[in-house]
Amino acid sequence: MAFPASSDPGAVSGPRSNRSPLFTGIVPPVCTPLTPEREVDVPSLLRLVDHLVAGGVHALFLLGSTSEAAFLTDRQRRQVVDAVVGHVAGQLPVLAGAIDMSAPRVLDHVASVTAAGAQAVVVTAPFYARTHPAEISRHYRAVAARSPVPVLAYDIPVSVHTKLPAGLVLELAAEGVLAGLKDSSGDLGAFREVVTGIRAFPGATGFSVLTGSELVVDAALALGADGAVPGLANVDPHGYVRLHRLCRAGDQEAARSEQERLCALFGLVGVGAPARMGAGSSALGAFKAALHLRGVIDCPVTAEPQIPLSREEVEQVGKFLAAAGLL
Amino acid sequence: MAFPASSDPGAVSGPRSNRSPLFTGIVPPVCTPLTPEREVDVPSLLRLVDHLVAGGVHALFLLGSTSEAAFLTDRQRRQVVDAVVGHVAGQLPVLAGAIDMSAPRVLDHVASVTAAGAQAVVVTAPFYARTHPAEISRHYRAVAARSPVPVLAYDIPVSVHTKLPAGLVLELAAEGVLAGLKDSSGDLGAFREVVTGIRAFPGATGFSVLTGSELVVDAALALGADGAVPGLANVDPHGYVRLHRLCRAGDQEAARSEQERLCALFGLVGVGAPARMGAGSSALGAFKAALHLRGVIDCPVTAEPQIPLSREEVEQVGKFLAAAGLL
Amino acid sequence: MAFPASSDPGAVSGPRSNRSPLFTGIVPPVCTPLTPEREVDVPSLLRLVDHLVAGGVHALFLLGSTSEAAFLTDRQRRQVVDAVVGHVAGQLPVLAGAIDMSAPRVLDHVASVTAAGAQAVVVTAPFYARTHPAEISRHYRAVAARSPVPVLAYDIPVSVHTKLPAGLVLELAAEGVLAGLKDSSGDLGAFREVVTGIRAFPGATGFSVLTGSELVVDAALALGADGAVPGLANVDPHGYVRLHRLCRAGDQEAARSEQERLCALFGLVGVGAPARMGAGSSALGAFKAALHLRGVIDCPVTAEPQIPLSREEVEQVGKFLAAAGLL
Amino acid sequence: MAFPASSDPGAVSGPRSNRSPLFTGIVPPVCTPLTPEREVDVPSLLRLVDHLVAGGVHALFLLGSTSEAAFLTDRQRRQVVDAVVGHVAGQLPVLAGAIDMSAPRVLDHVASVTAAGAQAVVVTAPFYARTHPAEISRHYRAVAARSPVPVLAYDIPVSVHTKLPAGLVLELAAEGVLAGLKDSSGDLGAFREVVTGIRAFPGATGFSVLTGSELVVDAALALGADGAVPGLANVDPHGYVRLHRLCRAGDQEAARSEQERLCALFGLVGVGAPARMGAGSSALGAFKAALHLRGVIDCPVTAEPQIPLSREEVEQVGKFLAAAGLL
Repeated sequence: MAFPASSDPGAVSGPRSNRSPLFTGIVPPVCTPLTPEREVDVPSLLRLVDHLVAGGVHALFLLGSTSEAAFLTDRQRRQVVDAVVGHVAGQLPVLAGAIDMSAPRVLDHVASVTAAGAQAVVVTAPFYARTHPAEISRHYRAVAARSPVPVLAYDIPVSVHTKLPAGLVLELAAEGVLAGLKDSSGDLGAFREVVTGIRAFPGATGFSVLTGSELVVDAALALGADGAVPGLANVDPHGYVRLHRLCRAGDQEAARSEQERLCALFGLVGVGAPARMGAGSSALGAFKAALHLRGVIDCPVTAEPQIPLSREEVEQVGKFLAAAGLL
Repeated sequence: MAFPASSDPGAVSGPRSNRSPLFTGIVPPVCTPLTPEREVDVPSLLRLVDHLVAGGVHALFLLGSTSEAAFLTDRQRRQVVDAVVGHVAGQLPVLAGAIDMSAPRVLDHVASVTAAGAQAVVVTAPFYARTHPAEISRHYRAVAARSPVPVLAYDIPVSVHTKLPAGLVLELAAEGVLAGLKDSSGDLGAFREVVTGIRAFPGATGFSVLTGSELVVDAALALGADGAVPGLANVDPHGYVRLHRLCRAGDQEAARSEQERLCALFGLVGVGAPARMGAGSSALGAFKAALHLRGVIDCPVTAEPQIPLSREEVEQVGKFLAAAGLL
Repeated sequence: MAFPASSDPGAVSGPRSNRSPLFTGIVPPVCTPLTPEREVDVPSLLRLVDHLVAGGVHALFLLGSTSEAAFLTDRQRRQVVDAVVGHVAGQLPVLAGAIDMSAPRVLDHVASVTAAGAQAVVVTAPFYARTHPAEISRHYRAVAARSPVPVLAYDIPVSVHTKLPAGLVLELAAEGVLAGLKDSSGDLGAFREVVTGIRAFPGATGFSVLTGSELVVDAALALGADGAVPGLANVDPHGYVRLHRLCRAGDQEAARSEQERLCALFGLVGVGAPARMGAGSSALGAFKAALHLRGVIDCPVTAEPQIPLSREEVEQVGKFLAAAGLL
Repeated sequence: MAFPASSDPGAVSGPRSNRSPLFTGIVPPVCTPLTPEREVDVPSLLRLVDHLVAGGVHALFLLGSTSEAAFLTDRQRRQVVDAVVGHVAGQLPVLAGAIDMSAPRVLDHVASVTAAGAQAVVVTAPFYARTHPAEISRHYRAVAARSPVPVLAYDIPVSVHTKLPAGLVLELAAEGVLAGLKDSSGDLGAFREVVTGIRAFPGATGFSVLTGSELVVDAALALGADGAVPGLANVDPHGYVRLHRLCRAGDQEAARSEQERLCALFGLVGVGAPARMGAGSSALGAFKAALHLRGVIDCPVTAEPQIPLSREEVEQVGKFLAAAGLL
């Protein structure tokens, strides 16, 4: 890989100093702007990418949950990776989700996104079919055996209804099956077990431990995370990049203050839920409404069958932006 | 549709007499035999179909959970429908699952399976992304609006982690969005709410209420279900067809006795779980082991990343078959 | 015990003929009427008992979930058993819940309710502390070892968040630890496993298999249940007794019709939930509102912190009663 | 209250400077040593208290989950508070859990523990009966209205199966209903919402925000928590007190190192689960085995129906102690 972590401004010290994780810093899960007809709006997508790059992000994660991967057809998924990889042209790493129910289906997505140029794939535990730790292990081994690029585990129990056990992640890391972890479980204690446990494996120095949290990025970096994948970084990439820099510089007070500003902004995800819609519709609708209000994307629509935000809900999003100094 | 329910041997009496549900009787969710290389074993699949037809089943349901749809690639899914539709050549109706995370992805499967000749599609609630009743409603409306064939709802909370509310199913039935329900929730009380509630909608006379249970088919038929979709009917189609006939004939004692024989046989699903594998691996592995032991399919392998049964576990399956008089 | 099952009007036939279960028939979980100050309203409680006895019920179950046991203090729990046991004076069996988190706490309740004259106790799996099948087994053994009366298992996953495995229930039945099962799991397939499995144990002929369902009592009795514990029998004991009699007489059509009338009536449990309150507040509030509207109890109040029904919601309850012919 | 937070060595700075939380620092949830007959071993309990006080802890929390409150009878619960309050004689604050299913039952425990001298009570959301946010609100209002001492909310979804919404906690804090939060949810992002949100309420300056985590105490303190309630502090109070001091002194590196030592030690909770027992049996058994090995308590037995650790499992506990420098 051409993106050594050593380019990171705030180099890691202490117990992590002999590590060189593949991916570090702020890696936004890129939203997928749509046209009113629910097709991928490529010009808006590329403007969003420019907005993120201008904000200083360190890599891009396409086709994650925040990207509405669960709602995009295979053709649309491919279109997203093609467009973004072509546009960034190697300026920064591009990871892509290969979100599907089982290894055989995941591998079709791996083939597609890597053909389009993705430099790593992000893969959840199996879902839909009930699973078991021994099956999760086989699943990652099957995917990694046939993936031409590194495989990161995506721990997202709210979607797949299984928590990846820290011990299993470490075992697969030690064996070179997994190249990293994107942890959207919300369980910082279990995340820490991976962060500290990985140090015991000299062969896993490239393993990247990334938090999916928006709200405790400062804490995750302080305890040794290599980076963060916050959906809210679509809306305020500069904020998360600043937060990352302050954390790496050891300025704990300023970092806390910036993180708290971002936490307040994150309140926008609740404008619609749970009264009128699910938490996903509300959060993704709010991210897109914010990007639209900030002039980044043309149309704030989300994919079917998500519920659109009402005018009042969009106005609330605007108030969150204003309070965070973003309008 | 060319398959009127009136061809059902035991015609429905009493409160259901003015109904003519589209699908009735025993509708096995057809297993998908695989080669040792995990490709669809078409000759074995067609032998399995012949075995089911010889057993007297009333329709076939392809690409359901029992068919390992969650593990089959799009190419393999298409291959299954192509092969079976061509083979049965209109002798009996063929339904197909269109199992995916959201309406846009489901619609790609609907296009594929109907191009291959499926006469109805079976669709779950959205999964992976968190959902909400209002979104489930939009989901089915979006699918039905663009499906060329009737859409049946597939209620399977163990997989999608949402229970379809009976009131929502009835509302969508009344509006003609849904043509039926396949209920794998295990909640017979809620199922009954649909069975009895549907009578209030004269426009929904074709709506098919099918239970996915193996264990209480007699009870479901007694309370008014139109049919059953038991995975175990792969192993013993004659048994379920006999059970259905006894129920329709009102021979409650004999029906109970036959159902109890099938319940005992169903114990084979637990040979491997939960100690060594998940419940799915164990059940699907046992169904296929039984089909292999009975000489119907060539190879009992299940799709990755499921755990294979051990020799001892396969022997246990054999004992269940012997006890049920099937070896 | 002084209440042989052979007094049951519809004696059991077929595979169950050599069984003599301790408790059979309709066993309502008796509501606990409260005064406006949330003290036990003993006169109303005794009128409710008279109403149930007049309806022909076969036994009474005090201090279950429907009795608001989770909300009653120890003093109030004792008061309920004292009052009812004294009032019925041996006319029919009285069972009592001993609902608490663990064996040591349950045993204090067992001591209290048996001192007050309860003839059997009904005990859930441990709750609050996370549990394990091996601990559930120890729990029942510890309770049974020190209980002066038979112990029935109360399977209620919605409250204790654990499903009692059928195999464990059968094992404890075979060893004489458990004298019965009250199944409020809603899983009729698993219930059947106990119903049929118990026949293999000649030493467990007294074991009582009771369903807690309101909606599939006909189905449960048809597959071999000994009786039912429906909360709705507070409101319409005559209906459930009639249903039981029709089932025992083998009149399947009339039984189904009566069950469907009761299912429609059961709709009253949803008048308040989930918009304004939890499912429990709504169901218990509706049962008590119905008993108040029918003139059985003086005050429809439920225990704190449950939400009271509004006037409109009580009016809806009245409409359900009227539709069922009960007003 | 006689225990002003200003006595805390590391006074709070920055955004929290105008706050004076009632309880701060390390507040261990005190284990309840038992005799082989499962009675409270008062001499061992008092030795454990001495061990904690010698370790420098700031307050004691009796009758929490770690204290096996779910397994102690009312008599035993009272005995614990009587013994400890008498023993510490005002040297440090004593909080007590009042763990039960609903407000009326909780209030009986509140009466008991405050009669015995507890200076605050810790109360979960209702459990067993299904609940609703509006009912949780009523529950805390009902308890607080009749409690003679401050009420802290105990957020422990793993036990009560409901997560306390941050907004509800803040609302009840603002109104003076709640005096604090003990957060055992594991969700540090939601915890932060309370920590930062509470600053907006000048009337809630005494509100104490305590984390129940063992693993991210450093992170919780860094983001503004007032203290921690780690079960593992029974085993190593000096460690957690040192960690707290380092955090308050702003020595982030040393704090992280100490926290990581404690995280490694925490591995002892898994010696028995999930293969042979539940997570609770394993964790509480390991805490007690460690206290026994360290010579603090006489007998490592846990309450029924928990599974005892095997000799091999106890040996593993010893290895964890040795690795942490505690043997």
